[in-house]
Amino acid sequence: MQGFPIPKDKLIMQPESDFFSFPKMRWTVCHIRELMPTKEISRGLGAPVPMTYALDSGIDTVTFQPLGSDKTMTWKASLSANYTDGMLILHKGQIVYETYSGCLNERGKHAAMSMTKSLTGLLAEILVVEGKLDPAAKVDTIIPELKNSAFGSATVRQVMDMTTSLKYSEDYADPNADIWVYSKAASPFPKPSGDKGPNGYFEYLQTLKKDTINHGEVFGYKTVNSDTLGWIISKVTGKDMTSLLSERIWMKMGAEQDGYMTVDAKGVPFAGGGISAGLRDMGRIGQLMLNGGKINGQQLFPNKVVENIQAGGDKKAFAAAGYKTLEGGSYHSMWWVMHNQYGAFAARGVHGQTIYVDPTAEMVIVRFSSFPSAANSKIDPTSLPAYQAVAKYLLNKDREK
Amino acid sequence: MQGFPIPKDKLIMQPESDFFSFPKMRWTVCHIRELMPTKEISRGLGAPVPMTYALDSGIDTVTFQPLGSDKTMTWKASLSANYTDGMLILHKGQIVYETYSGCLNERGKHAAMSMTKSLTGLLAEILVVEGKLDPAAKVDTIIPELKNSAFGSATVRQVMDMTTSLKYSEDYADPNADIWVYSKAASPFPKPSGDKGPNGYFEYLQTLKKDTINHGEVFGYKTVNSDTLGWIISKVTGKDMTSLLSERIWMKMGAEQDGYMTVDAKGVPFAGGGISAGLRDMGRIGQLMLNGGKINGQQLFPNKVVENIQAGGDKKAFAAAGYKTLEGGSYHSMWWVMHNQYGAFAARGVHGQTIYVDPTAEMVIVRFSSFPSAANSKIDPTSLPAYQAVAKYLLNKDREK
Repeated sequence: MQGFPIPKDKLIMQPESDFFSFPKMRWTVCHIRELMPTKEISRGLGAPVPMTYALDSGIDTVTFQPLGSDKTMTWKASLSANYTDGMLILHKGQIVYETYSGCLNERGKHAAMSMTKSLTGLLAEILVVEGKLDPAAKVDTIIPELKNSAFGSATVRQVMDMTTSLKYSEDYADPNADIWVYSKAASPFPKPSGDKGPNGYFEYLQTLKKDTINHGEVFGYKTVNSDTLGWIISKVTGKDMTSLLSERIWMKMGAEQDGYMTVDAKGVPFAGGGISAGLRDMGRIGQLMLNGGKINGQQLFPNKVVENIQAGGDKKAFAAAGYKTLEGGSYHSMWWVMHNQYGAFAARGVHGQTIYVDPTAEMVIVRFSSFPSAANSKIDPTSLPAYQAVAKYLLNKDREK
Repeated sequence: MQGFPIPKDKLIMQPESDFFSFPKMRWTVCHIRELMPTKEISRGLGAPVPMTYALDSGIDTVTFQPLGSDKTMTWKASLSANYTDGMLILHKGQIVYETYSGCLNERGKHAAMSMTKSLTGLLAEILVVEGKLDPAAKVDTIIPELKNSAFGSATVRQVMDMTTSLKYSEDYADPNADIWVYSKAASPFPKPSGDKGPNGYFEYLQTLKKDTINHGEVFGYKTVNSDTLGWIISKVTGKDMTSLLSERIWMKMGAEQDGYMTVDAKGVPFAGGGISAGLRDMGRIGQLMLNGGKINGQQLFPNKVVENIQAGGDKKAFAAAGYKTLEGGSYHSMWWVMHNQYGAFAARGVHGQTIYVDPTAEMVIVRFSSFPSAANSKIDPTSLPAYQAVAKYLLNKDREK
């Protein structure tokens, strides 16, 4: 996107099929607000609290074995293999590794994609621990508008853990998947005159029907759960996601930048995937999760919130969904829990976004990227073992001290 | 815009005819980014430089005589009469008055409307003083694409002072005015399929034809001049308006908030009216203008830039345009120069936006408002004499010390 005017073949514009095609997507992930309406997540007006550095160039040479491969790869090589736009590693609260590439720099903001869900889940879990949201409550007792939808008969916990039973497919590779119909309802642009379809997240959610299985039995990764959860926390608090994230997190964590969220045509923030934010600010969120809700000497939410998330969800329900790169894991309060030897858990988004928290190695990894495929199953083989290798490296370094 | 969902009769949405209707407009002016795509004017990542306070509650009781009235009015009463959303008065660099109302608070951003033009003009004047932009150059020597339009044969100075000769009407009250056709081209939303009209500012500007009079004879307040000037400064610098404002002004003036600009469907910022910003940040810009380009001990641009603007433009060309509330004034580098006894000059935008700089009283007034009518001729009678009354009050106070 350079030139005045930008040459036709370099232009990146609406519609989504253009701006999210590869390689244009590599630009788009840093420029979401230039393509659609958004709402600010304010950091407030105070001075940011700078992070401290203890950079370790040795990390670049850490090697690991990609899943399903018999060759080793270096950490440095994994960055370009994954189309990494930004990589931040925190160890014991200090930045040990930081790099920017592609469309991102330290002043930029990158699409968090479905990492947004984990922030929605975090807010919900905070409300649960504070006693303001009952996880056992049926959704229609909080949102009467959802009485006749699939969600009405589900519990808040089932929504939080995505074990609701829904007639809904979310195969991003299938152009006829429900997710794209949903996208149309979610579009912030004026609808064609005469359009009778649902307009906005709230209207769309009311149309969803229950599948034949019971709620609570199988994990099904469906963004609409996150939007229902966003609606739930807004009903309970009287505030929208951007206000809650600002008041609860951004204004209190020493953030360097405002974040923002995309909105539908009625101004409702996209709780399932709408956040864009700076790399180090996402690092602060990872640090909050690592540190039981504490940052810069301040307790932003109870340690119990992180404990609940870390404990994980129903492994059996998760196993039924068949995630090959995440075997033995679970999904709880919209966080991916690895249940590995390090007790790691993560926020994850398509095209390679992650906040990976490793409590044993006291490590947080934040990656923004723009991998050509949406599916993390293609990105995990050169990512998850790399994270574990760095965790081991940092643990060994600690022991040698 | 409250509730989950927001009741139908309270919803504020696209299209513009809805969101800019009164009273909905009173919300919209603080929420532009939630209705359309925007591009950030980054303040950078450093700590803001707080402004200092010397509040003076006496200002509320200052009285003045509205133009064309035989009754007096207090300053305080003038605020509600003008649907004021934010009012800031700086005296000798300190805040003596600050108030928020309507949709605005100190963390909010408000539409600057055509005050944007003055920032475009400021950037251009900086480039002129730096020798990077020749005001005598014909526009088509800088932008060959404009060769066959009205602008091609005009000089940069004529564009900067809006004395170009254009077949173009900008009567906001007339729904068939060119400004609305322009709006359609400028809309960031996908065009209906088959639409053959110009898409974006740059395409539209190329379609404009010269009127019968010569360039340089008459001042004609037409937003398209500002967009042409935005194009000119982008061609000359290789950077768009948001980058220039960030690098030259926002990152260096100790700003508290990022600003932003609306963009067309091709990502071009609206140089004629697209800025939204915080009240105190607009105050910092006013202070820069009062103080010859200096703020917080730093010289951001040469004093000569402000001198050039303050000197004003062609009073005869201005008089021909018949602005009753601004008799004897001129328009120069997209600033309104009063040529009054105080040497005041101003940035102005529809619905009552202003940065009013009074060098004699060492006073800057910034007002954000959402007056029902667009035309400042209806707002000036209770504004311009009020500003002069406060200037006198502050001068008297200085003398009494």
